Amino acid sequence: MRATALAVALALLVAAPLQAAQPTRIDQPSLDRAAALRTQALADPTAWQVLESLTTEVGPRMAGSEADARAVEWARAKFKALGYDRVWTEPVTFPKWERRSEAARVLGAHAQPLRVTALGGSPAGTVEGEVVRFADLAALQAAPDGSLAGKIAFVDYPMQARADGSDYRNGGGIRWAGPSLAVHKGAIGFLMRSAGTDTSRAAHTGGTRFEEGLKPIPAAALSTIDAAQLARLAALGPTRVQLALDCGWDGQYTSQNVIGEITGSKRPQEIVLIGGHLDSWDLGTGAIDDGAGIAITMATGALLKPLKPARSIRVVAFANEEQGLWGGRAYMQKHAGDVGKHIIAVESDFGADHIYGFDSSARDLQPAALAQIQQVLAPLGISWMPGKGEPESDIGPLTERGMAWAWLGHDGTRYFDLHHNAEDTLDKINPQSLAQNTAAYAVFTWLAAQADGDFGSAPKPPSAGK
Amino acid sequence: MRATALAVALALLVAAPLQAAQPTRIDQPSLDRAAALRTQALADPTAWQVLESLTTEVGPRMAGSEADARAVEWARAKFKALGYDRVWTEPVTFPKWERRSEAARVLGAHAQPLRVTALGGSPAGTVEGEVVRFADLAALQAAPDGSLAGKIAFVDYPMQARADGSDYRNGGGIRWAGPSLAVHKGAIGFLMRSAGTDTSRAAHTGGTRFEEGLKPIPAAALSTIDAAQLARLAALGPTRVQLALDCGWDGQYTSQNVIGEITGSKRPQEIVLIGGHLDSWDLGTGAIDDGAGIAITMATGALLKPLKPARSIRVVAFANEEQGLWGGRAYMQKHAGDVGKHIIAVESDFGADHIYGFDSSARDLQPAALAQIQQVLAPLGISWMPGKGEPESDIGPLTERGMAWAWLGHDGTRYFDLHHNAEDTLDKINPQSLAQNTAAYAVFTWLAAQADGDFGSAPKPPSAGK
Repeated sequence: MRATALAVALALLVAAPLQAAQPTRIDQPSLDRAAALRTQALADPTAWQVLESLTTEVGPRMAGSEADARAVEWARAKFKALGYDRVWTEPVTFPKWERRSEAARVLGAHAQPLRVTALGGSPAGTVEGEVVRFADLAALQAAPDGSLAGKIAFVDYPMQARADGSDYRNGGGIRWAGPSLAVHKGAIGFLMRSAGTDTSRAAHTGGTRFEEGLKPIPAAALSTIDAAQLARLAALGPTRVQLALDCGWDGQYTSQNVIGEITGSKRPQEIVLIGGHLDSWDLGTGAIDDGAGIAITMATGALLKPLKPARSIRVVAFANEEQGLWGGRAYMQKHAGDVGKHIIAVESDFGADHIYGFDSSARDLQPAALAQIQQVLAPLGISWMPGKGEPESDIGPLTERGMAWAWLGHDGTRYFDLHHNAEDTLDKINPQSLAQNTAAYAVFTWLAAQADGDFGSAPKPPSAGK
Repeated sequence: MRATALAVALALLVAAPLQAAQPTRIDQPSLDRAAALRTQALADPTAWQVLESLTTEVGPRMAGSEADARAVEWARAKFKALGYDRVWTEPVTFPKWERRSEAARVLGAHAQPLRVTALGGSPAGTVEGEVVRFADLAALQAAPDGSLAGKIAFVDYPMQARADGSDYRNGGGIRWAGPSLAVHKGAIGFLMRSAGTDTSRAAHTGGTRFEEGLKPIPAAALSTIDAAQLARLAALGPTRVQLALDCGWDGQYTSQNVIGEITGSKRPQEIVLIGGHLDSWDLGTGAIDDGAGIAITMATGALLKPLKPARSIRVVAFANEEQGLWGGRAYMQKHAGDVGKHIIAVESDFGADHIYGFDSSARDLQPAALAQIQQVLAPLGISWMPGKGEPESDIGPLTERGMAWAWLGHDGTRYFDLHHNAEDTLDKINPQSLAQNTAAYAVFTWLAAQADGDFGSAPKPPSAGK
């Protein structure tokens, strides 16, 4: 088996470069300009100014809230103020979820409040019941159906901090799948330890969905500290909790993807797409998630405009990523026929800490051009990490339809301390790291716009079940 | 002038030892036993167990709340479980203040919520007005009377972290004096940047008092992050805020000082008094303030009991320190006639980080005995710091009536990150530091109980105006 795997790997190594009939290359003047741009971007205040403006003047901007509309107007005005050549919006319609109030408390001899936040998608409701603790989703899964009748399921998984954020698979997985699973077991309510790596009282919200046909139950996340407290109390004996949520769905809302474009000087119909998402959860001011992505990519376009890039630079401030990639899916639906014109895309939606890795879907197809780009990224402390990356959030739907992508990977060790909670605020951004991020995005975007040749974008039919 | 001051200082140096007709000394067996006790205490789990029990099983325990009574019962039971010879309570009556709800938000074009907490003593009320920012209390003081009519005063002083916590003079001073000052200027509401050194969304509560005859106004603290946000918004232009507090005074409540005593084997009528305060604010679970003090001193008594100390060890879990030293004042009123029997007192009410300094009111009177104690404390990393210390909180009233005191000073660099806010929870305690604290208190208490001679406790009349 090992010999066979090795043979396959060797065959791929040999075959991959052969697929590229026309090796894409970048000319020396463009490479030289990229090195100067890198230096310029490290000292440029635009990204910080954009981020401060968004997080201060708009503040929290949950999809469908009053601030959603203000964020759209803010983005439109900011693109114009930054000198973008074209600014427009494209509608994105989705169901609106509202948070009105949320509380939980231990009842009885150890009565005390618990800090919780409703999961996005939770229904309203007040339930009281004994808490049954599970160490992880598998333990809840193993409980017999109906065994939690009249009780509140409590999944107490402590998410681990990692640079690549990979344990979000577990933490986020509990949030998405846990509530439905709890309904199957008969539970009247769902509590989870926040999908977060901090030790603070700030509970982490985030989306959940109930399976079709299930009757939804109130579902909330405890802060990591309150989860530890509840675990200690449950270890002392039967512990009853009241969970009281006022929240829920309320009709449809139409927001906008806000798009700014620097028109290409030579191949204006060809697009390098960059972006982040404009919406945030409501608890913080959305600095790391994803004001930083908006700031980094808006600043990138502004830095590139005077350089007259050959291709057009399209910056998309996507609507409603948080509640189900609505903006990214709307963009895909509108532009799936133009996949070939989207030469390559890169999103920033993983905070603003140091970018350490670079990868692309074109790693096998265009190794030479990517190596040229990597050489200019290297002085920023960025390594070529083939196979490590993936397309981030909102560009995902169009990459599934064939758009080439790049990955500029932020260090996510600290990301889930702040993700979706009240602590996601401007002060948590390191200005030096934000500048490094902007330099990386500017260098990549410039070189992708100047490259002579493509990165393999080509239409693909929708995959089954998507 | 300098020569005169030097002469006075020299005279004091010479005169001080002469005041002690009977130098107090500690015998060698007691010193040897103290060294063994130090080692034992560093490995003893009692303090951690007591702290975990209090913060978990009782949780937040604001004076006058339902949990106040549970805390009293907890303390009584815990003293008994730890084997104290005598356990009793002494009533403490005070006005009860309740927190029901609290919210603030920016109105208008930059509408967004602000995280606040009502100051203890604030009345209920909902006010809306333009915010006027002041850099500190002096700036508010300098505003003309009446100049804030219809407006909300916002004192935005950033408290500095220091090992001795000395900038609480400014931060806490704004909290106590700011609201009344704002009323004098005509303000309809009072906001302050929390008297805290963290950068989190956790606002810091704490007591305030309005001057007699003033009409109180709603008064709250913003988290340090929200204060920075409001300052940025106010810098952009006139900023209106709604502050909505439901809280206030509601009659009288009688709680209890809970007292446990290890009866002295040779001089049972003479007391070494140690303690902390049992109440906490309601936002956290009162781990550093002052569960740690309760845990350290309860564990000290338990550690000393098998050693049969010559004097009695009295551990007091004081009621309602937070809202005005009610427990400490009640103890003073009841025991002022017995000041001479209270050989010396030491309180722990400054968290559970490393103890670095030792001082005493007897520094000039009994330098030899204090030097003997310091020698046993030194291996714990504790320095003799004459003139640096003071009697902590609840023992203050009786020291003003002549009781000798000692100071075992905790490193307070981190204390005001957590003080009076939701983050004051068990996980913030370093178990190694808590053990060092307990070792220090145990060593001091044991040696004070064994000392042959006193530390200068002697009745003093109440000072004018007290």
